[in-house]
Amino acid sequence: MHTLDVALADRSYPILIGAGLLDQGDLFRRHLKARDLLLVSNTTVAPLYLPALAASLQPRRLVEVILPDGERHKTLATAARVLDVLVANRFARDCAVVALGGGVVGDLAGFAAATYQRGVDFVQVPTTLLAQVDSSVGGKTGVNHPGGKNLIGAFHQPVLVVTDTRTLATLPPRELRAGLAEAIKYGLICDAKLFEWLESHLEELLAGDPASLAHVIRRSCEIKAAIVGRDEREHGERALLNLGHTFGHAAESATAYKEWLHGEAVGAGLAMAAAASVESGLMSAADSERVRMLLQRAGLPTHIASVTPEVALEHMRIDKKVLGGRLRLVLLRRIGEAMVTADYPADALTRTLAAHFG
Amino acid sequence: MHTLDVALADRSYPILIGAGLLDQGDLFRRHLKARDLLLVSNTTVAPLYLPALAASLQPRRLVEVILPDGERHKTLATAARVLDVLVANRFARDCAVVALGGGVVGDLAGFAAATYQRGVDFVQVPTTLLAQVDSSVGGKTGVNHPGGKNLIGAFHQPVLVVTDTRTLATLPPRELRAGLAEAIKYGLICDAKLFEWLESHLEELLAGDPASLAHVIRRSCEIKAAIVGRDEREHGERALLNLGHTFGHAAESATAYKEWLHGEAVGAGLAMAAAASVESGLMSAADSERVRMLLQRAGLPTHIASVTPEVALEHMRIDKKVLGGRLRLVLLRRIGEAMVTADYPADALTRTLAAHFG
Repeated sequence: MHTLDVALADRSYPILIGAGLLDQGDLFRRHLKARDLLLVSNTTVAPLYLPALAASLQPRRLVEVILPDGERHKTLATAARVLDVLVANRFARDCAVVALGGGVVGDLAGFAAATYQRGVDFVQVPTTLLAQVDSSVGGKTGVNHPGGKNLIGAFHQPVLVVTDTRTLATLPPRELRAGLAEAIKYGLICDAKLFEWLESHLEELLAGDPASLAHVIRRSCEIKAAIVGRDEREHGERALLNLGHTFGHAAESATAYKEWLHGEAVGAGLAMAAAASVESGLMSAADSERVRMLLQRAGLPTHIASVTPEVALEHMRIDKKVLGGRLRLVLLRRIGEAMVTADYPADALTRTLAAHFG
Repeated sequence: MHTLDVALADRSYPILIGAGLLDQGDLFRRHLKARDLLLVSNTTVAPLYLPALAASLQPRRLVEVILPDGERHKTLATAARVLDVLVANRFARDCAVVALGGGVVGDLAGFAAATYQRGVDFVQVPTTLLAQVDSSVGGKTGVNHPGGKNLIGAFHQPVLVVTDTRTLATLPPRELRAGLAEAIKYGLICDAKLFEWLESHLEELLAGDPASLAHVIRRSCEIKAAIVGRDEREHGERALLNLGHTFGHAAESATAYKEWLHGEAVGAGLAMAAAASVESGLMSAADSERVRMLLQRAGLPTHIASVTPEVALEHMRIDKKVLGGRLRLVLLRRIGEAMVTADYPADALTRTLAAHFG
C-alpha cells in the first residue's frame, strides 16, 4: 500500500493506494471514526463492490443509496434524493457519507456531504481510473445544471480516500481510456517525464497492466495533492488542472451529458487546448501533434462532430473560468508547462473551435 | 454610521449599521466590487426597498429574483430557482448575490451564493430586526427540509452586511417582537447587562424607538461578531448561539414552518431552555421567571399548544445538535451565562417538553 497526504492543516487527509484495499477492514477502522455511514454507489458498481466494502465497514450502522449510472444523473434532484435518505434515517452531524464509484458518484455524494447539516465527513472510494487519478482528490464536489457542467457545488474535502486498484479489473475499456485523459493532462501541465512515460507505456495501460496503472495513479495523485495543498480554492495555480476542461465541459453540456464520458470530453479538450496554444503562438506544432497522437492512440476523441462551434462557444461562456466578461483559457507553452491566460488572439479561439467542433 | 468587523483573516468583512444606508450609493461603491449583481428579495420587501437599493447599486448589471414571503418557502426547490436565474443570465464567478429582506431571504440567497460555481460573493441587506440582530451575520446559510429546520446548508460568509435601521419603520409589530427574541438570547448567553437593559427599555423597543433599536442591533452584532470570529464553524463556543433553537426548531418543523415566525419559536424555546435549566438544577427558578416575564412582556409565546411533547421530541432528535446519539442542549447557569451539555437528567427534558408543548 502506498500512502500520500493532502496537506491542508486541520483538514489534511490520506490517500491510500493499493490492490485489495476494499477488503481490509482494519484500514477503515483505523482511518474512519464515524459510526453511522451512508454508502452511495450506483447500479453498475454496487453489485460488484458494495458487499465487500460493507463487510469491511462493520460493525457500524450502514444505509445504502444506489443511484442510476451516468453523468446525466449528476443533478440537484439526485443530490436531493441522497439528502432525503440522510434525513429519513435521522443521521446526525457526526455521520459520514462514503462514495463508492466513479466521478459522478463521488462529486454528487460529496455535494450531499458538503450540504447536509452544513457539512459532514466524506470518504471517497473511487472505482474508475478517472476518479482514482483525479476526481476523488481535492474536494471539488457538485452537480451539473442543464446550462453547464458542475455549476452547482461546494469545496468539501474528504477525510479519507481509499483507492483499490483491483477495481480496475472490471472497468470497461471505454472508461479506462477516459481515465487516461486526466493522466495525460497531468503530464501536459507540469510533468513532461510523465507524458513521455505514458507515450512509452500506453499499450500496457490499455491492456490493464496493474503495475503500470498503479504508477499512473500514484504520480497523478502526487501532482494533484501538491497543487491542492498549495491552492485549495483555485485562486491561482489550481486552475491549471482545468486544462482541456473548458472545451470539454462545453462538449458535455451541449450534448446534455449523454454522448461523452467526462474523460472523453477532456481528451478532446486537451487536443483543443494544444491547438489553441499553437494558434496563440505559444507551443510548437510538433508538440501539439504529439498530444494529438497520444490521445488518438489512447482511443480518445479529438473532435466533437455533433456540436457546432457556435453552440460550443455559447456553452463555454457560462463556464466557471469567465472573469470580467473574458473567457480565460489554460494553454500550453510546451509539453509539461501550462499557463492560465485571458490574453490570447480572439481568432485563436474561433479557429480552434471551428477546427474541432461540427 | 457604526462599523463593526467580523474578523476571519482573509474572509473578514464589515457590518455597517445606520439610518438611511440603503440610499448611500457611495457606500456600496466603496465596499462592493462585483459588476454583475443578483438581487434576491421577497414580495413584501421588494416594493418597499428594492428601488432604493437598485438605485444605490448603479451603474451595474442588476437582475432581480422576487421570492414568495415566508419560512415555508425556504426550500431547496426555491434555492434551485435562484440558481436557475444565475445560470440563465450567464453570471460568472465574479458576480455577487445580494439579499434584501429577512432571515429567510438571507439564508436562502446565501445558500445559492455558497453553491453557485462553488461559491460567489454574497451581500446581506437585512430589513427585519431578526436578520439585523442575528441571521445576517456569521455565514450560516441554508434551507429547510420537511424533516427539519436548516438541515441543508453551508457556511458561507458575506463580504458585506449593510443594516439600514430605517427599514424597521415598516416592520409589522409581530416581526419586531420576533426579532427581540434573538436579542434576549444574546443577553441570556453572555451579557446580563444587555438583558437588564432590555427589561428596562422594552416599551421603547416595542414602540419602535430608533435609538433603542439601534442600540440592540449594535450590541447583538458585537456579541455575535466576536463569537463567530473565535469559532466560525461551531466547533465549540458558537453552539451557545443556539440557545432556545433546538426547542424552537422542533416547534417550527412540527408545524411545517407555517404557524410560527422563527423568532417566535425561538422565544418559546428560550422559555423552555430556562425551564430545563431549572429542572437540571443549574439555574434558579427566580432567573427562569425573569426570562418568562420578559418574553411575555415582549408578546412572545412561551408555550406551543399545537404540538404534542412526543412529536416535539421526535423533531428534536433530527436537529443538528445530536452527537453520539445524545441530544445536546444549550442550558443556562444564570442570566448571562450559558453552557452546552449532553449531561442533564433525562426527565429534565421530558418534564420541560410536557410543560411547554401540547
